[in-house]
Amino acid sequence: MSADSPFRPPASLLDILNGARRPLVIAHLSPDGDAIGSLLALGGILYRLGKDPVLVCQDPVPTNLQFLPYHDRIMTTPVDEVDVVVALDSSDPSRLGEVYQQGRYGRLPLVVIDHHVTNTFFGTAHWVEPAACATAELVYYLGELLLAPYNGPDWMANELATYILTGIVTDTRGFRTNSTNARVMQLVARLVAAGAPLTTITEQVLETRTFDLIRLWGRVLQTVRLDDGVISVINTQALRQDLGGLVRPESLVSFLLGAQEAYIAAVFTELPDGQVECSFRARPGHDVSRLALELGGGGHALAAGCTVKGDIEAVRRVLVERLQRC
Amino acid sequence: MSADSPFRPPASLLDILNGARRPLVIAHLSPDGDAIGSLLALGGILYRLGKDPVLVCQDPVPTNLQFLPYHDRIMTTPVDEVDVVVALDSSDPSRLGEVYQQGRYGRLPLVVIDHHVTNTFFGTAHWVEPAACATAELVYYLGELLLAPYNGPDWMANELATYILTGIVTDTRGFRTNSTNARVMQLVARLVAAGAPLTTITEQVLETRTFDLIRLWGRVLQTVRLDDGVISVINTQALRQDLGGLVRPESLVSFLLGAQEAYIAAVFTELPDGQVECSFRARPGHDVSRLALELGGGGHALAAGCTVKGDIEAVRRVLVERLQRC
Repeated sequence: MSADSPFRPPASLLDILNGARRPLVIAHLSPDGDAIGSLLALGGILYRLGKDPVLVCQDPVPTNLQFLPYHDRIMTTPVDEVDVVVALDSSDPSRLGEVYQQGRYGRLPLVVIDHHVTNTFFGTAHWVEPAACATAELVYYLGELLLAPYNGPDWMANELATYILTGIVTDTRGFRTNSTNARVMQLVARLVAAGAPLTTITEQVLETRTFDLIRLWGRVLQTVRLDDGVISVINTQALRQDLGGLVRPESLVSFLLGAQEAYIAAVFTELPDGQVECSFRARPGHDVSRLALELGGGGHALAAGCTVKGDIEAVRRVLVERLQRC
Repeated sequence: MSADSPFRPPASLLDILNGARRPLVIAHLSPDGDAIGSLLALGGILYRLGKDPVLVCQDPVPTNLQFLPYHDRIMTTPVDEVDVVVALDSSDPSRLGEVYQQGRYGRLPLVVIDHHVTNTFFGTAHWVEPAACATAELVYYLGELLLAPYNGPDWMANELATYILTGIVTDTRGFRTNSTNARVMQLVARLVAAGAPLTTITEQVLETRTFDLIRLWGRVLQTVRLDDGVISVINTQALRQDLGGLVRPESLVSFLLGAQEAYIAAVFTELPDGQVECSFRARPGHDVSRLALELGGGGHALAAGCTVKGDIEAVRRVLVERLQRC
């Protein structure tokens, strides 16, 4: 099977991982299903290799990912006595947050596993595959490479399959992105056959929302506008003052891009500090990552975002004009 | 492969199909992706067997399914000189509409292929498998049985795979229903490998909406209520008087069921004739099909619907109370 693997980590990365005794594995800030799924999956693989991995993410595991086994092993503060650092699903070191302390870990080998096209190739050894649909997909091939020689074709325990499928469902938005192909669907079938509960994962990752959030969708959708192919909404603090939480921009912005008349969708969310979080989605043939990168953000051609200063109405006006040229 | 098929049609049904020269294949009224996908797939299979199938559906192919090859071969009026009738994805004869004329076709063998648990077992030979995720899944196994002996393992032409995957994506709502399992995902991987464009299908079937429809979602969501676990909205004629079209209840009602606080979701839509179309969804452990059936509708335990007379506010009040006990 390994000979057929579409993705292979560089030998230098394998050497570092094989030599690690107590690796510190870090997933990015504001973790999503691919960050947490990759973190738990790599943790499980390293553990099965006889290592003592330490799993860290600065922000807590979101409620909707707490169905994942052993999610409570993930810590929010760093530890000492580790010998290797692994950064997952993070395009640059700032995504790791304050848990990645240069003074403490700067002298250790830093291994980077990621699939973002905007990755800055930081670290001692990096494995960056923009063609992978999720970082969890890379962790799968790493697991196959490292565990199958010892455990045979059934190396993939039920919970490893669950973690990996959670990452894939998250980043493909339920097999909707153009990174979804026959290779990915064959892997998905294998993960489901290994016991990963696809419908539970999809429900938790893509469909769980609160009643307040549904009410907020109704209010935010009152602000919808279509300007020459760019569909947008604004989510002001005033709209949600009597409600809990934020609209998760991922699902609303994808919903908007379903408009037949639109080729780009944008959600502008006013944050408590007055900054505006911008989330962009594009149809194939357009590229919103360059604008996001220019404004200090990041992402992929078809899905990117950034946070900017300014009045939310003015930000919308200016950026919708820029988006019309993306 | 056929020996392993999880579903096998009865021999009597195969005899009728094998003996047909010019079969009339009918999909149900208000066709969805499983109706049209099954219709085109079975048409393609029968054609490849050297027959001259006639494909009919009383209502036109919806715009979002017009990406399917040869969709323009589907007629909306019946014809003479057919020798067998096949009813697809239809739980009872009324679902076929006026194109199924008793006087004209009553004496011909009637073959029924369906996966609705509410099927009334009408027809001369029926193949009803409630465990199938879609009627298109049954058509796949029929195609394998009938075509693989002649054409080998590659019997499945690209467009047949596209039709079948369209049916499966529609009825599993993108692999979200509890009818989605390892068997289904292995078939999906096979269909994608055979050339079915999963992301296009998902986009067309589940994510295509007009700008007006998005505006209508915002308005309808203003009516959202949560009553002891039942989340509901009403879609009145007044709300959409300046907009085109109806909210497709399938996607809005599924969206509502994402509410963590709800176990049943309902969308009530006021029709132009004053009747109220009711669409219900339930979480596993509940059953909305009995209520729908009692009110003259149909469906599955977790997804059912009906059309009733009455003032929309009154209908909501009475049925929400009934739904709380489902």
